[in-house]
Amino acid sequence: MHDRPRDDPLRSLLFTDLYELTMARAYAAEGTDQEAVFELFFRKLPPGRNYIVAAGLGDVLDSLETLGVTEDDLDYLRTLGLFSEAFLGQLRGFRFTGEVWAVPEGTVVFPDEPLVQVVAPILEAQLVEALVLNQVHFPSLVASKAARVVTAAAGRDVVEFGSRRAHGTDAALKAARAAYLMGAIGTSNVLAGRRYGIPVLGTMAHSYIQTHDDEAAAFAAFAALYPGTTLLVDTYDTLEGVRKVIDLGRRLGDRFRVRAIRLDSGDLGALAGHARQMLDAAGLHGVRIFASGGLDEHEVDALIAAGAPIDAFGVGTKLAVSEDVPSLDMAYKLVAYAGRPRMKLSSRKAIYPGRKQVIRRVEDGRIVRDVIGRHDETLEGEPLLQPVMRRGARLAAGRVSLEEARVHARSELERLPEELRSLAPAEVPYRVEISPALQADHDALRRTLEAAQSG
Amino acid sequence: MHDRPRDDPLRSLLFTDLYELTMARAYAAEGTDQEAVFELFFRKLPPGRNYIVAAGLGDVLDSLETLGVTEDDLDYLRTLGLFSEAFLGQLRGFRFTGEVWAVPEGTVVFPDEPLVQVVAPILEAQLVEALVLNQVHFPSLVASKAARVVTAAAGRDVVEFGSRRAHGTDAALKAARAAYLMGAIGTSNVLAGRRYGIPVLGTMAHSYIQTHDDEAAAFAAFAALYPGTTLLVDTYDTLEGVRKVIDLGRRLGDRFRVRAIRLDSGDLGALAGHARQMLDAAGLHGVRIFASGGLDEHEVDALIAAGAPIDAFGVGTKLAVSEDVPSLDMAYKLVAYAGRPRMKLSSRKAIYPGRKQVIRRVEDGRIVRDVIGRHDETLEGEPLLQPVMRRGARLAAGRVSLEEARVHARSELERLPEELRSLAPAEVPYRVEISPALQADHDALRRTLEAAQSG
Repeated sequence: MHDRPRDDPLRSLLFTDLYELTMARAYAAEGTDQEAVFELFFRKLPPGRNYIVAAGLGDVLDSLETLGVTEDDLDYLRTLGLFSEAFLGQLRGFRFTGEVWAVPEGTVVFPDEPLVQVVAPILEAQLVEALVLNQVHFPSLVASKAARVVTAAAGRDVVEFGSRRAHGTDAALKAARAAYLMGAIGTSNVLAGRRYGIPVLGTMAHSYIQTHDDEAAAFAAFAALYPGTTLLVDTYDTLEGVRKVIDLGRRLGDRFRVRAIRLDSGDLGALAGHARQMLDAAGLHGVRIFASGGLDEHEVDALIAAGAPIDAFGVGTKLAVSEDVPSLDMAYKLVAYAGRPRMKLSSRKAIYPGRKQVIRRVEDGRIVRDVIGRHDETLEGEPLLQPVMRRGARLAAGRVSLEEARVHARSELERLPEELRSLAPAEVPYRVEISPALQADHDALRRTLEAAQSG
Repeated sequence: MHDRPRDDPLRSLLFTDLYELTMARAYAAEGTDQEAVFELFFRKLPPGRNYIVAAGLGDVLDSLETLGVTEDDLDYLRTLGLFSEAFLGQLRGFRFTGEVWAVPEGTVVFPDEPLVQVVAPILEAQLVEALVLNQVHFPSLVASKAARVVTAAAGRDVVEFGSRRAHGTDAALKAARAAYLMGAIGTSNVLAGRRYGIPVLGTMAHSYIQTHDDEAAAFAAFAALYPGTTLLVDTYDTLEGVRKVIDLGRRLGDRFRVRAIRLDSGDLGALAGHARQMLDAAGLHGVRIFASGGLDEHEVDALIAAGAPIDAFGVGTKLAVSEDVPSLDMAYKLVAYAGRPRMKLSSRKAIYPGRKQVIRRVEDGRIVRDVIGRHDETLEGEPLLQPVMRRGARLAAGRVSLEEARVHARSELERLPEELRSLAPAEVPYRVEISPALQADHDALRRTLEAAQSG
């Protein structure tokens, strides 16, 4: 585990919405801090997405284990004029003591299925809302995008390149991690490499070529220093650049070790075809072709469908910001309090009350149907939610390494029906059913709440 | 300034793409570490955007002042097998020694205009690319979105609510800051409040209502604890909720201090109209109406156009992720090296070589035209780029407070021609010209490079 700086938002109870703190004081004042169950789920699949991949659990558990306030934090809260000294004193000793259930990182999930379930005194469970959502929403979003890119690449290498335009440093690191989780072979971000143990990869930039008076001299100098490197050939004229790589190969003979050329602009498919012919004609069959420049899953798919001889793809911005779907309708909702199921009425979307479990049915190695049921129901199939933390301490299932999660994610993608794995929207969405017992709980609670409103 | 944790990506030289480090070693090995000029700009306005607002400079300067490597970082780099001990020794002493020019935070900018200009030995200027881009791209993107939301609100209050679905913690904090910069009155994120000195605001969540057996009892308890609070009325039946607030007003009489009700679902315009009538009929003219729930600038604009009596808007996800435009085509490009202008050829988009200045012409208090010229040209108008750092140390213009930047941002929006301020795409984009001298430099360098390619 990496070292945790003191002011890291991931360990600060102040990374929360103000109303969580005002409500917490109210719970404390009213003496109503009983056990609550909150569930994190998303309401519907965004257009063009057939599934979402759960990610980010590790950071959530890390936060929950270390979350607290400093005296500086308390001094700041005092300035807001909203909190009694009694309440601030209570916050001083804050530590998360609850239980967490979650689906393993890398698991494919569908609308209304809890990804994370927090069971704790309501003061604690409520205070961590913003952090839990923030740390699961984006990783799940970007892992789902990465799954599509890796699927489109159909076995060719994908490298994550998106740090520059990711939304801040945390997003850059998380995007690199999520891409690797879903099968990318590495990232360009060195800090992500160090922090998560992900392979770091890179080529060269146009600026390196431009600082040399001569492109060929730049290639020669870089190749001498980094024998297995990738040379960027499109600074001036792409096919001229390829010719210079071939010339370098002729000059160096057996000492030529350049592993790849990179194309970063223009008609990547046509340029890759020409470059491949030129390299092959020169006997440089081993020099691979790496393509980058504004790629997403659709462009990768189109290049491969057109037969472009591209061996590896660098995918940046559109992956790291999940360009077509930059947010999910994900929420963290109270479903039970003091042992009784809860729900709100005014939403047009049904929210099912009570603590739940998700059961997945698998046939012939493919997932076919999920049932969302009560937590205590016995239903046939694989239960997705597992206990990962108890009394504020991680359990074994909460200590899954990135490599283990990556293996799990791969098997999850392999278990997807073809229609869901496809980049195209599935004509028939995956079946998610509500168990009769859960439906009955919902209907009964709705009747009670409606009667209370009209009474 | 807030305290800076040791592992903060903003002070780690490892928050960079691997190729920056391999190129740096190459520069060191080749003895070619001469002065470079890099410029950060965006190439074109995204669809539906008439301008971009520059933001994020403070974090960039903060990083540049403190950036370095730790022994742990060096140990990690050693494991990659790419770097000589001589180079690692050079990195150990790394500190940024360059000069930075930038447009002030909150300034409106247009395509091809440098927002930030870094002048430093190429090893330094190149290594900071990912960090500079990452720390300017997202803040500028989200500030531009916030400008539209605040403009749409037409004087009504806007509160930033987007932490949960922002892309990670860094993005959440930056979105809160950018929204305040552009005129939002505050944020719900408490850590952003503490870190940046932004007002923090909040109401109550549905879960608070749900933990009480009775909505009216929940209102009474909360209002007793927080006299000037906002009560959320849509947990069960919105207008029923409003009636309960009115009942509470009748019961409390002079002691009733509730400041607002919040609507978070349903037809916000119609509900606000009904609620206003009910509150007014009960004599509660002072109780304001706060609306939230999936809002963006277009919905705010439509509500106001329809005459909805809404006094304040909570705007979350769509602002914090810049939902319609989650990235800009922003780049950090070498434009001069060793005293000579540089450019690449293969791009279809012209990139102008050499160090630049942007001159803005203002007529009758509105901006009318910009000219991008050579850095050393004398052109009539306001120069946008100002020196903010010299020899690695901030200058006065690099120490602008958030409040000062906020005043500047407001005057910038006021100076926009109406057509650009509008939410609708401008029929005629803002005029940005290239000075004849810069155009001549570009044409001459293009001829030289093309001759070198064909020769």
